[in-house]
Amino acid sequence: MNETFEALKPRLDRIMALKTAMILFEWDNETLAPQKAARLTSNVIGILSGEYFQAVDDGQVRELVKACQGDQSLTEVEKAQVRELSKEQEKLACIPREEYQDFARLTAESTRIWQEAKEADDFERFAPTLEKVIGYQKRFAAYRAKDGEKKYDVMLADYEPGFDMELLDAFFATIKKELVPLLKEVQASKVLIRDDFLRGDFSDSQQEKIGRFLAEYVGFDFSKGVMATSAHPFTTNLHNHDVRITTHYNDNLDSSLFSVIHEAGHGIYEFGVRDDLTQTLVGEGASMGMHESQSRFFENIIGRNRSFWVPIYEKIREAFPQALTDIGLDMFVNAVNKAEPGLIRTEADELTYSLHVLIRYELEKALIEEDMSVEDLPKAWADKYEAYLGIRPETMKEGVLQDIHWSQGSFGYFPSYALGSAFGAQLYAHMKKEMDFEGLLEEGKVDRIREYLREHIHQYGKLKDSRQLLKDTTNEDFDPQYYIRYLKEKYKKLYHLG
Amino acid sequence: MNETFEALKPRLDRIMALKTAMILFEWDNETLAPQKAARLTSNVIGILSGEYFQAVDDGQVRELVKACQGDQSLTEVEKAQVRELSKEQEKLACIPREEYQDFARLTAESTRIWQEAKEADDFERFAPTLEKVIGYQKRFAAYRAKDGEKKYDVMLADYEPGFDMELLDAFFATIKKELVPLLKEVQASKVLIRDDFLRGDFSDSQQEKIGRFLAEYVGFDFSKGVMATSAHPFTTNLHNHDVRITTHYNDNLDSSLFSVIHEAGHGIYEFGVRDDLTQTLVGEGASMGMHESQSRFFENIIGRNRSFWVPIYEKIREAFPQALTDIGLDMFVNAVNKAEPGLIRTEADELTYSLHVLIRYELEKALIEEDMSVEDLPKAWADKYEAYLGIRPETMKEGVLQDIHWSQGSFGYFPSYALGSAFGAQLYAHMKKEMDFEGLLEEGKVDRIREYLREHIHQYGKLKDSRQLLKDTTNEDFDPQYYIRYLKEKYKKLYHLG
Repeated sequence: MNETFEALKPRLDRIMALKTAMILFEWDNETLAPQKAARLTSNVIGILSGEYFQAVDDGQVRELVKACQGDQSLTEVEKAQVRELSKEQEKLACIPREEYQDFARLTAESTRIWQEAKEADDFERFAPTLEKVIGYQKRFAAYRAKDGEKKYDVMLADYEPGFDMELLDAFFATIKKELVPLLKEVQASKVLIRDDFLRGDFSDSQQEKIGRFLAEYVGFDFSKGVMATSAHPFTTNLHNHDVRITTHYNDNLDSSLFSVIHEAGHGIYEFGVRDDLTQTLVGEGASMGMHESQSRFFENIIGRNRSFWVPIYEKIREAFPQALTDIGLDMFVNAVNKAEPGLIRTEADELTYSLHVLIRYELEKALIEEDMSVEDLPKAWADKYEAYLGIRPETMKEGVLQDIHWSQGSFGYFPSYALGSAFGAQLYAHMKKEMDFEGLLEEGKVDRIREYLREHIHQYGKLKDSRQLLKDTTNEDFDPQYYIRYLKEKYKKLYHLG
Repeated sequence: MNETFEALKPRLDRIMALKTAMILFEWDNETLAPQKAARLTSNVIGILSGEYFQAVDDGQVRELVKACQGDQSLTEVEKAQVRELSKEQEKLACIPREEYQDFARLTAESTRIWQEAKEADDFERFAPTLEKVIGYQKRFAAYRAKDGEKKYDVMLADYEPGFDMELLDAFFATIKKELVPLLKEVQASKVLIRDDFLRGDFSDSQQEKIGRFLAEYVGFDFSKGVMATSAHPFTTNLHNHDVRITTHYNDNLDSSLFSVIHEAGHGIYEFGVRDDLTQTLVGEGASMGMHESQSRFFENIIGRNRSFWVPIYEKIREAFPQALTDIGLDMFVNAVNKAEPGLIRTEADELTYSLHVLIRYELEKALIEEDMSVEDLPKAWADKYEAYLGIRPETMKEGVLQDIHWSQGSFGYFPSYALGSAFGAQLYAHMKKEMDFEGLLEEGKVDRIREYLREHIHQYGKLKDSRQLLKDTTNEDFDPQYYIRYLKEKYKKLYHLG
């Protein structure tokens, strides 16, 4: 090993250990920790985040990074680690440590407050916390902004490097222009799709059993992973041999089944990261958009595909006999693809999904760039739902309180969901040329598709960014038209439109 | 606040944060982490334990501790923290950091290896790991031993300060002399106690439901605590607002019910620690013996007391109708108190329990002081069971592989179980003079008993050691005769002996 990098290595390991500890606390907080623990536990998290801050923002570490940056003898993997550490240093150098720790303490409590507010359907209960979170996020972005850079652009780059407001404005403009009319066409269509049977009283244990089956079926490895429950399903990982997904059980079979496949997709990405990258700063998915591309690929392009269900539908039918005994494969597949404006993003069909994201994108811009007040948020939220989806939330929990993200300070994350969907559609178009995609699914060979994704995407971790991964895989730069074409084709067929 | 202590405070907080992080990893490892995670996670734990080591064994911290030690203006709580930190410094100063970290890494994997070996009933699979663990423990003790101090004495003092081999030899000699003959008398008695109905096929969900009920009934607060499952039930806590117990479900109702009450007893101790002590080095139970005194007090003195079941037996009976419909209260209470030599410590009745501990005490002494080889352990174990309890294990999992402790390096822990039982009996004898103990139980007022224990024991954390607590509560020094009398009285009555 290169001598300078060898000196840096224990520092990198220390940074990763502290980061991993914070990830475990976060996991614990969202899945298990007792209700009243958060205040005292946030003291611990504040201190650990301060340790992390110091470990990154350390004079000696800076010197080593500088020395490594000029050193051509480093391997590609070493260079990537130095690059990521340098980025993190640049970020933290702008933020006062005290404020950074305070923010970590705040978010250790804020998700709990959000959760309680959501349960109580009471926005006022969450508003002061949200205001604080936004305050920190705006200050941090202002500290970090270079040469007149916009605050929201700083945030966006954390989740999807290379995509700024200019690009996203154009992307979402395309979505608005193409998908709002398509949804209107669908709604005007005479085709009626039944999906009433997806709602009912399903036992938690049966949902869990089938959830585990589906996760395993698409390739989630339970010897290196676990599944728990949480208010808002998510995926995290300590390394590539410890990947954790959560689910939630409810009276909506669609939400229950596809949420698991979605999180399993995230998990499979993390399992796929190479052993020489895990436990390093490049040992995780390339970006949030690329991560969502994989989770949504598994959920939608694989999971809502008729061919996927051919080998396994009987099993699902037997698991939920009351709901599905009289429902054939096609009725089931049509139901899980039905397009219908709804209030909840995570339960949205593929067509309306991006409109939910569009709304959040516009609101985040307003909150961060136009100083919209938190007080005005519920009404603004409802107005946009009415404008783009034609429906208006009656409650806060079906409205502005539905998502966890803002409580964690994750402003700039939402656009990755739509970008990820678009990445996935582009990958799908390419993969169909390389393999008999639907044929493999019908034969139950999800592993072949998963292997392709591992080979082209997952294994690299953060060695390549999302655009590079797309380009190296599909031989093309990012092109959102694949996404529009995918949705048009799918929904025109489903609703017998011209 | 005193200025010197104020300078020490952030160092203490940092030490506690690192310790808390390690506790969370340990909890996670034993309750949830995926099977293949341990190797990579142990890297993280190795680093965190190194950070902890450095945080304690730091030149500036040492100076501050020294300055505080001479300072009479410190409060009692501050002094106690300085005392505990100084003890920890003394301990770590003797151990090379590299070895300390290696050991932490080892134990992060070794419990998993123990668990797999136990499941496979294969001692060979665990033996090399156990050998390594013992090697570290002996080296560490040798580093720390002062003026010809014995290694096993060093270990004992970690769990029960003030109790060394000399004292424990005498204690266990009394136990052997008094209880082995008592057990023989019981076995010779004509009284037959039925307990067959306690074994059967009980659903996990029903066991969980009743477990939660019992935990709550004795005072475990689920708003500040959680219950999970693990191979070996245990209790841990992050602070007094986050206390965690585990249980295991099985075909033995006795084990299922009383394991929960036992762990709830540990948990109640931690809930009871004062708010100004939690998240400090004195914010946990006084010693392992005092901890076990509380858990075994709840399990046995409260839980196996006929009066305890008077208000709630009907509920238990309804929960397990197949087993208990025809079983009256007295039959049930007699069954859960039946004395019978068995192979498993955690399922032992109160009379044979200390003999299980005696065996472990003698084996630990042999392993540590007489260099008995790990290879000889299974036979030595079986021989002692035959000698003291008249039965011989046929399998490793019912023999030497049954307990988790040695896999964690906890040599010197076992005696605390017997000591704790003896502390508890002494407390009980005193409390009966102060309150109508059985009357309170019959009225369902466990809270009154719990409050007494909180006031006299729990609230102090480590401010007082176990002997001081006993003395301040009962006005007497530790006296094992209370324990012998308690058992004699109880079992002579139950078995109609002279």
